[in-house]
Order: sequence, then structure tokens, then C-alpha cells
Amino acid sequence: MTGDRPPTIIRRSDEMRQRVRAAQAAGERVGFVPTMGSLHAGHTSLVERAASDCPAVAVSIFVNPIQFGPQEDFDRYPRDLAADCKRLAPHSVRWIYAPDVSEMYPPDHATRVEVAGPAEPFEGQLRPGHFAGVATVVCRLFHCVPADAAYFGAKDWQQTLVVKRMVADLGLPIDVVVCPTVRETDGLALSSRNAYLTAPQRQQATALSTALKQAQSDWQQGHAISDIEHRMAAILEAAAIAVDYATVVAADTLEPLAPSDQTTAAIALIAGRLGETRLIDNLSLPPRTQSPC
Amino acid sequence: MTGDRPPTIIRRSDEMRQRVRAAQAAGERVGFVPTMGSLHAGHTSLVERAASDCPAVAVSIFVNPIQFGPQEDFDRYPRDLAADCKRLAPHSVRWIYAPDVSEMYPPDHATRVEVAGPAEPFEGQLRPGHFAGVATVVCRLFHCVPADAAYFGAKDWQQTLVVKRMVADLGLPIDVVVCPTVRETDGLALSSRNAYLTAPQRQQATALSTALKQAQSDWQQGHAISDIEHRMAAILEAAAIAVDYATVVAADTLEPLAPSDQTTAAIALIAGRLGETRLIDNLSLPPRTQSPC
Repeated sequence: MTGDRPPTIIRRSDEMRQRVRAAQAAGERVGFVPTMGSLHAGHTSLVERAASDCPAVAVSIFVNPIQFGPQEDFDRYPRDLAADCKRLAPHSVRWIYAPDVSEMYPPDHATRVEVAGPAEPFEGQLRPGHFAGVATVVCRLFHCVPADAAYFGAKDWQQTLVVKRMVADLGLPIDVVVCPTVRETDGLALSSRNAYLTAPQRQQATALSTALKQAQSDWQQGHAISDIEHRMAAILEAAAIAVDYATVVAADTLEPLAPSDQTTAAIALIAGRLGETRLIDNLSLPPRTQSPC
Repeated sequence: MTGDRPPTIIRRSDEMRQRVRAAQAAGERVGFVPTMGSLHAGHTSLVERAASDCPAVAVSIFVNPIQFGPQEDFDRYPRDLAADCKRLAPHSVRWIYAPDVSEMYPPDHATRVEVAGPAEPFEGQLRPGHFAGVATVVCRLFHCVPADAAYFGAKDWQQTLVVKRMVADLGLPIDVVVCPTVRETDGLALSSRNAYLTAPQRQQATALSTALKQAQSDWQQGHAISDIEHRMAAILEAAAIAVDYATVVAADTLEPLAPSDQTTAAIALIAGRLGETRLIDNLSLPPRTQSPC
């Protein structure tokens, strides 16, 4: 779908909220794609999905300081609003909400939305405060952009669980829609952080999706979870990727699966570091019918 | 103002939200009074204020388990929905939102809204988790009852600061209105917990407002803050009230005041225990013009 007119860039939450409410009062369903900018085809796939569901689409662009740790890449995270607007131009986006930090976080702000449960393992352990930063900004964004549905990429699987948990627990009146990961032709999941990779690292990085595809194949053949996990780690290490985790867990809760569990939907999750750059990826593993070896 | 028709009791958040949205779509401003039931004239003063501002008023009645500590009075907290409805009958209340615990907290709920800043001292120190429980339930209630304005009593002064902080930080589109404390003729602030007092304790409890009035007089006469605090504590102790705190701080931040500060609005805050019953109260101290002694 092609945009009829260029999106309006909105800086103030009051104006953003009024525009969304006015569209809803006119009977339009509003879709919302929250982003940190540096948009790629993964983001535009979310926009396309939102536009297919909703006549009015808002995209937010906000690099959220409170979801970055002190040693993380907040300062070097790529920011280019003009390029982002250009990338959105072919798509049906009515509003780009681009607040600055002072609009999102008032002086003396002191509130955090803390999620336990699915926010605790993996990224929660390795990036203390990250998911509180995500949940807090998403909660605030859902007040600034009170859309009917919000669209998130499955690439950040744990994040989607955290957002869904928060929405259910706080009774936020919004549908959370999780959309498929978009990949390069060689399998690498699109990520704004791929821009950090050197040419050799970019080659190495294909090991992430290779490991996940191996896990999917091994899972379908009934291998034991511990064997699947070891094989994923071995593939990453062979590509000189430092493994943060390579695991198979329950898709909805991220809890360990019993070896005999044949019916729970599972997910393979991996995180690894190439030099200064940290990448994550995942692949769904449908309930399997064969017994584990 | 007298109610034209009895309020509708609503149990489900979806229905509650739809009714509020429909009233707003019809151009009506909606006022909201969140309560834990056991309604008294303090609550009905909030309802009266809401009704004077808004043609449509919602009152919620929900004893929120997560704002009580494990040793606190959740189990014995008074609950009588029929009596509460009767007390609201003479007032202009359109809806009573009375969810049960399972409606408010889904299975596996794992989200807390944590406020630092004004939530940290006093009640925050003495009742760990209390304000997270308050902020979480108020945030959720504001999603279930998306009113234009919410009304809180100044008697729970620190709570009003926590709610205002959360509303500002999360960008909740609701006005927080703080209304004066309602008192018995002998000065005791109305509280659902007054019902726990024995007849002799009820007599002792007047010392709370006596101490606050003394503080106000001492403040106006320019006494030093430490002297004012000691005198409040002495009045409470003379009435055999175990003092949790008796303090004078900045009204907006609850931070200590410099002895030479003449311009900051202050507040006297006290908390004390009579047997098993814990009571709090406060009194505003306007900026004083006289120098401290």
C-alpha cells in the first residue's frame, strides 16, 4: 500500500493523543508501530501489517534512554529522522510521533513499570533494567498514542512477552500483534544493530540463523533439548561468536521444558556477541510428535 | 446534589471502559473516585466534588490486596458493598465499579508500577511495597475507568504525591484533583480504619489532630522545625500513641526543609499506632513570613 500523503511529524504527546482520539471518534481503527528509528524492512513489514488492519497508522521514533545499560550503545545507536521519514514515505503512515527525551520523561521522573515473569531470564539477567525501561516507555507510549492495536516484531521475542504481560496486567486497552521476523536472504534477522558489523562479522553473523535452523531440524527429529542447545552453541562458537545463551524453552513463558513434554510450543532463543556488537535471534519450534532420543 | 437514579454496579472492566467512553463520546466529562469501600463522609465529599465538576461520576470499590503488607489488615479490612451503595444513594453517582480480585489481577500477573521520589520516605519505608501496590492498582483502574479527572483525599497526602508523580511520568491523560480532609467535630480525620478503635482509643486518637494544630500554630509563630517535630511527638506520646513519624517537610517533595527556608509550602505529617490500629494524618503549613526562632 502506498501512502496518499506524507505523514505528519508530531512532537507533542497531547497533539498525538488528540489526533488518535479524533480518528477513533470518526470510526477509524488506529494501528501503532513503536520503534527506535533506524528503520529497516523489519519495521516496514510491521507498518504494512498495521496498514492492512487499520486505516490510520502511527509510527513512533524514540531512542529510549532508560532501556540502555550504562555500558550499552545508547550514544552510538543510529539516529536519522530524515532517512526514517524517507523509508516510511512509500507506506501508509498517517503520523510519525517523534518526541524528544524531555517530552517523554518529565524532570524528576521516578516511575518504572517493572515486569517479573517473562522479563526475568535471558535478556532480563544480562541487561539489568532493560525490560523495565522497555515496559515503562511502552506504557507511556500507549498513553500518548492510544491506538487500538500495536505491532511488534517476533525478533525481540522476549520483549513481546513482556509487553503482552504488562498489557494484560495493567488492563491497557490495546491489542498486541506479533509479526514474523524479516531476514536477509542468507538468514540474518534484520536489526538496526547489524549496521555495527564489519564485513567479516557480517559473514560470521549468519551462524545465528544457521544455529536456529539446525535447532529446528533437531527438534523436529526428536533430539533431547540439552543436545539441541549444545549444538546451537557449538555452531555459534565455530563462527567465533561469544555465546550469551542458546536455549530451547516454552514459547509463552520462557520456562524450561520437561524432556518428555511433547505438547508445549517451544522457542529456540540465542544471543551472541561479535566484538562490541550484541545480536539476538529466535525461531519458533512447534509442538513435536516424535519422542526425544 | 441528589442522584436521579441509582448507580449501576459494574463488575467487568470492558463494560466499565465502554460506558465511560460512551459518555465522553456524548460530550460528558467523567469524574472518578477510586475507593476501597467502607465509605464515609470523606469519600462522599470526593463524590460531591466530582459531581460538581462532571456530569458523569464513577466510584470504584476494590480492596486492593497488593497494597497491604503480609502483617497488615487486608483480611479484617471492612467490606460491605450494600452499605456502600446505600451511602452513595443520595449522591450523583452513575456507576459503581466493583471488580473482584480475579478481574483486576489476571493469573500469573507479574507487573508492578514502582514509584521512587515521593514514595520513598515515611509510608514507603514503613510499609514496603505499599506504594507499588497503590500505583499499580491506580494505573490499572485508570485504564478500566478512563475518566477525565480522578479525586483523592488529602488525608493520604503522600499517596496523592505518588499518584500525581505516576500520572505525570506515564503520561496518563487524567487530571488528579486533591480534596480537603474531612474531620469529625473533635478533629479526628475520617478513615475507614477508625472503625477499629475501641472507645478509649477513639479518645486518644484526637491527639493526632491536636498535634497537627499545635504544629500549625508553632509554624506560624516561626518555631524551628525540630522543635515543632518534638512537640508533635510529645503530644502523641502523652496520649499513649506509638509514634511512627511526626515531621515537617516540603509539601510537594516530602524532602527536608532548610531551617532558613521561608518560601516553600510545608506539610506536617504524622503516623501513629493505637494497639493494632495505625492512623495517619497531616496538615498543610503555608509558607511563613516570620523567621524561625
